[in-house]
Amino acid sequence: MASWYRHCSMMPFAAALGCADMGDRTLSDLGEFGLIEKLTSGLATSPAVILGPGDDTAEVNLAGANVLITVDVLIENRHFRKDWSTPIDVGRKAAAASLADIAAMGASASALVVAFAGPGDLPAAWAAACTAGLAQEADLVGACIVGGDVSNADLITIAVTAIGPAPARVVTRSGAQPGDVVAVAGRLGWSAAGFAVLSRGFRSPRALVNAHRVPEPPYALGPQAAHMGATAMIDISDGLIADARHLARASQVLVDLDSDALSVPEELSAAAAAYNIDPRMWMLTGGEDHALLATFPASASLPAGFSIIGSVTAPGDDGPGVSVNHTFDHSRGGYQHFIA
Amino acid sequence: MASWYRHCSMMPFAAALGCADMGDRTLSDLGEFGLIEKLTSGLATSPAVILGPGDDTAEVNLAGANVLITVDVLIENRHFRKDWSTPIDVGRKAAAASLADIAAMGASASALVVAFAGPGDLPAAWAAACTAGLAQEADLVGACIVGGDVSNADLITIAVTAIGPAPARVVTRSGAQPGDVVAVAGRLGWSAAGFAVLSRGFRSPRALVNAHRVPEPPYALGPQAAHMGATAMIDISDGLIADARHLARASQVLVDLDSDALSVPEELSAAAAAYNIDPRMWMLTGGEDHALLATFPASASLPAGFSIIGSVTAPGDDGPGVSVNHTFDHSRGGYQHFIA
Repeated sequence: MASWYRHCSMMPFAAALGCADMGDRTLSDLGEFGLIEKLTSGLATSPAVILGPGDDTAEVNLAGANVLITVDVLIENRHFRKDWSTPIDVGRKAAAASLADIAAMGASASALVVAFAGPGDLPAAWAAACTAGLAQEADLVGACIVGGDVSNADLITIAVTAIGPAPARVVTRSGAQPGDVVAVAGRLGWSAAGFAVLSRGFRSPRALVNAHRVPEPPYALGPQAAHMGATAMIDISDGLIADARHLARASQVLVDLDSDALSVPEELSAAAAAYNIDPRMWMLTGGEDHALLATFPASASLPAGFSIIGSVTAPGDDGPGVSVNHTFDHSRGGYQHFIA
Repeated sequence: MASWYRHCSMMPFAAALGCADMGDRTLSDLGEFGLIEKLTSGLATSPAVILGPGDDTAEVNLAGANVLITVDVLIENRHFRKDWSTPIDVGRKAAAASLADIAAMGASASALVVAFAGPGDLPAAWAAACTAGLAQEADLVGACIVGGDVSNADLITIAVTAIGPAPARVVTRSGAQPGDVVAVAGRLGWSAAGFAVLSRGFRSPRALVNAHRVPEPPYALGPQAAHMGATAMIDISDGLIADARHLARASQVLVDLDSDALSVPEELSAAAAAYNIDPRMWMLTGGEDHALLATFPASASLPAGFSIIGSVTAPGDDGPGVSVNHTFDHSRGGYQHFIA
């Protein structure tokens, strides 16, 4: 569920021209991030666009005000299963993905619009409860659902767009500096552990299963991190390593993660032992918890809730990216759509 | 593809409570507009929300600026077919739906975000050309694509959110007054005629087929209508009668349409004759052309491009709604998702 926000070029419609160099390649061949690269490589921009594709949200100047905007889509059987989650869970999860993107810019969302599609035989009560879940999650940050669209689709599809006012200081992915500390707030690996539990046909431990059903992004810590001087920030939706890599590449730095600094919660270690898995794998590669990963100057006081898990250095021979315990990570290290 | 924007109530999360009174009803049982009614009936609002669900767009105050926002979703084999349309056509059509909603408020869009989902075996060039189509259509109003999300789905699904600055005078659906004239700008029935042609296996007349593939909303006439004093306005996405009814109900008036005032273009009359159809049926009930329907004081000068097709009166015994040649229309009179 990566977003394809990044600074865009001045070449209008070159995306169409870009078709020629794709040959017969499919979405699966390119993978999620390769596709995003292709789709955004030729987009036009305008003076109103302050931040285009490539960050957690875009930033646009509208009538003199700077506005953040982001969209995320959840699809039945890809992002959720009706037999695993209640419709309220699904609505909350769908809203959380977009609300966390706004938080990761150091901001707070004000409003959501929702495109909802589903099959004709879906109980209307399911759609209503899902909408209630969207509204409940939005209410956690004081946002409202202000509109939407409904349509007919074989599988339930929920695209949530969030908008909010840009604060005076927007924290992008691209401001990390060598010497900064790397810190995280929120859960790591809980959703992945819950997915592992559910995939094996179990419904407990409840804490992990519930974490997979409804993430708990630390929304308030996004603006606090901005206030305390965060130099870069990203919402962890694809996995710690994958999203640290996005931040590292945007900032042209090396992010070194210290796996010993990841304190493994009892809930994760118990489940991991039962499945003979290293719980740190969940914490390093599991997505969908929507924790916040931020970098701060070494001298900064961190907001309560953030823990230091690494440091930023200038890139080495392998270029910008992520190392774990000083070993460069060449893996994909996170979930990508289209790649099995 | 109706949007579910309307003034929302103060009851938080009552949508969840509303589940109880739906019994076993499905989306098909409720129909598109019944579902929208259910989904929006209990939504919370906030001081930032100037216009909630129930109009072509919502209006939200962000950092002191008023912003319009709308979303529309297009789904393969529901809204387009890959064998009928090029990916550029599909991108243009997807963008047009949202851009026309902004125009119908008397405004112009500045930016789009796009949620794109498709199957792994979709050629990447298709996705890139679709993105180019989105960008081309956005460029017609000076808007840019600023971000998005990609995901995996069995059928191509494109949710386009448009935002733009709210003008000093936003034209809603609810301002029509008895005594106003009813006027339309843009094509009526062309997309429906093109659909009829394509459905019969033909690829010509090209003008009609192309109109179904890519609508040509009169974007610039939205702000002009606002400037010239339009009292209410709506984008015709579901059909003239259906959208006139939305406007009439929002304004609590009767809209009387004069079918003789609908001048039938030669292209429509020729195709209608070949299929033994009254071309005015296409014009009265066909959607997806994204013409603009507006009401003006009888004394107003209409912007060039608008033609008077009816008048506004106080509602009669049948209540607010639409009459055609003074006969109240009790039909649904437009396309609704979920109802066969």
